[in-house]
Amino acid sequence: MNVNGIATRTIAPLPDCSGVIIIDQTRLPFRYELRTLRGLSDVAEAISTMRVRGAPLTGATAAYGVALAMNEGVDLDLACATLVATRPTAVNLAWALTRMKSALAPLPAGERRAAAWLEAAAICAEDVEVNRAIGRHGAALIGVAAKNKAGPVNVLTHCNAGWLATVDWGTALAPVYAAFDAGIPLHVWVDETRPRNQGASLTAWELKQHGVPHTIVADNAGGHLMQHGRVDLCIVGTDRTAANGDVANKIGTYLKALAAHDNGVPFYVALPGSTIDWSLADGRAIPIEERRPEEVTCMTGETTAGEVVTVRVTPAGSPAANPAFDVTPARLVTGLITECGVCAASREGLLSLYPGRG
Amino acid sequence: MNVNGIATRTIAPLPDCSGVIIIDQTRLPFRYELRTLRGLSDVAEAISTMRVRGAPLTGATAAYGVALAMNEGVDLDLACATLVATRPTAVNLAWALTRMKSALAPLPAGERRAAAWLEAAAICAEDVEVNRAIGRHGAALIGVAAKNKAGPVNVLTHCNAGWLATVDWGTALAPVYAAFDAGIPLHVWVDETRPRNQGASLTAWELKQHGVPHTIVADNAGGHLMQHGRVDLCIVGTDRTAANGDVANKIGTYLKALAAHDNGVPFYVALPGSTIDWSLADGRAIPIEERRPEEVTCMTGETTAGEVVTVRVTPAGSPAANPAFDVTPARLVTGLITECGVCAASREGLLSLYPGRG
Repeated sequence: MNVNGIATRTIAPLPDCSGVIIIDQTRLPFRYELRTLRGLSDVAEAISTMRVRGAPLTGATAAYGVALAMNEGVDLDLACATLVATRPTAVNLAWALTRMKSALAPLPAGERRAAAWLEAAAICAEDVEVNRAIGRHGAALIGVAAKNKAGPVNVLTHCNAGWLATVDWGTALAPVYAAFDAGIPLHVWVDETRPRNQGASLTAWELKQHGVPHTIVADNAGGHLMQHGRVDLCIVGTDRTAANGDVANKIGTYLKALAAHDNGVPFYVALPGSTIDWSLADGRAIPIEERRPEEVTCMTGETTAGEVVTVRVTPAGSPAANPAFDVTPARLVTGLITECGVCAASREGLLSLYPGRG
Repeated sequence: MNVNGIATRTIAPLPDCSGVIIIDQTRLPFRYELRTLRGLSDVAEAISTMRVRGAPLTGATAAYGVALAMNEGVDLDLACATLVATRPTAVNLAWALTRMKSALAPLPAGERRAAAWLEAAAICAEDVEVNRAIGRHGAALIGVAAKNKAGPVNVLTHCNAGWLATVDWGTALAPVYAAFDAGIPLHVWVDETRPRNQGASLTAWELKQHGVPHTIVADNAGGHLMQHGRVDLCIVGTDRTAANGDVANKIGTYLKALAAHDNGVPFYVALPGSTIDWSLADGRAIPIEERRPEEVTCMTGETTAGEVVTVRVTPAGSPAANPAFDVTPARLVTGLITECGVCAASREGLLSLYPGRG
């Protein structure tokens, strides 16, 4: 998607394969800075400090980390072990590293370097195509909504499942970009998504850069907007999808799904097939990460003098809790938007798109 | 309630009636500062800049503003006109000023000063008694919950309807303080309440000062906590209650009511009878204030160096919307806790406690 009017991806290799360029996402939305990673340790640091984040992008970056390790002559197993330890809970990270290992391990040492760069590029290209397909299927839903009303289609989203979380297009925002690029009038309500503010900082930034009309709201506002007919549909992402269509996504997603259900607003979840966990009968068994209380008690922003500072917004000594995800039951989900098409949030629905699984 | 171990009220006259002491709530939770208001202009400034806030406390402060105006020999009508203009939307403000005017206007000029101080004190004393009664009725509900479980009763609240919003006790928190003081083990989940953060800054501060166990959470977390049985009941306040039991309260209240309903968690609304608007058949006609977008885009906090600063947390130029209240339909409200007792959230329920109204 566009940054400063130029089509941009979150990650790209240098033409001579001596390094990989990323957007330093820890600096957004206050600074737009590219950063060149030149070796395995650079990549490990970038993933663990969340300069790159989002499951698909983390996997793609790790794949390039293996390629850079091959440049440096680092042992393949050691490189993968180093990278997998950077974010132990991210599923795509382990998946990308397993794939790199399978592609490289059978090759003679002298051929691994070139193969690694090709395989990492293939992982990125596949991510883009999967997301583009999600965008195509989801844009059709936005197009239908546009035909049934005057004025722009109002889409509400939560957290950041945009192109910054992937190599390009995003998951939940892929339908928005596809519809916008096709000229369908739309406007996005951006939940700020406390406590980490991915909506206010990342989603708003990427929509603004691409020129998509949007408005940031407190997470508290979505129910009121739906009560007053100001939301036509919701689209969110998911970190893990159970085989029955229950979805685990950023904390607060469940509350928006309840409000959508109460007001007859369609609630869609966009996902690549890789996030479906066929081993889970339902969402109750999905483990919910409890993160640091400082994400609730502190916030980072820019002063009027242009300085980026972190401040504590709570009384000194008041404790805080920080569950990072919640589970939205399939009964509240209107449909799942995947690279294979749109289906009901149910075992039957998923099996209709992914036959032979489960 | 207690501050630094000492029973404290939000407002108190000096013994010689030369001024009124308030807590400067714009400095909380980072600084606890008392401020003496010595004249009409001091009071008008304190209300309009929200050094005092909360409908009951605003009314009480305005009453003392009239008393200070009498000290200064200011005309009664002029004093009331000045004060009513400070926060044009607050109902209690107009109510308190009408009451002061009714009490003073019939008196000879020489008797108004002494009468004004007595009437303002009476308004404060009545507020305390109303809230104490709400606390007594609500504490009984917490007591029942305590008998049905091991460990502390977990109460979730939204925004600040605590003693800082009133003269003492609060509305939604009055039952919490009454139960806590009675030795019932409890713990409060405090919604931070974006965008103005009244939960994280005021509710957490006053609970901490009184010694009530509590934990701050992002507004997004409440649904997840309820799904996992970690909330026994919700108690919130209301800014206006329609005759059918619909309640307008701080934005985001509706989302918590939906989650409580979906998980079988009792959802109570605490209110003094004065917030019932018998002229409204239901909540749909309640006007919803749209506040400045800067409340969403900026946050104030304390740096590690102890400096209190305001930072922008969104991309420069991204627009924000800021509806301040939402309406929770009566069907989602388990009961209304009033100074007259607990009733169903319905016209019949309200009429059972306030016969002859409506």
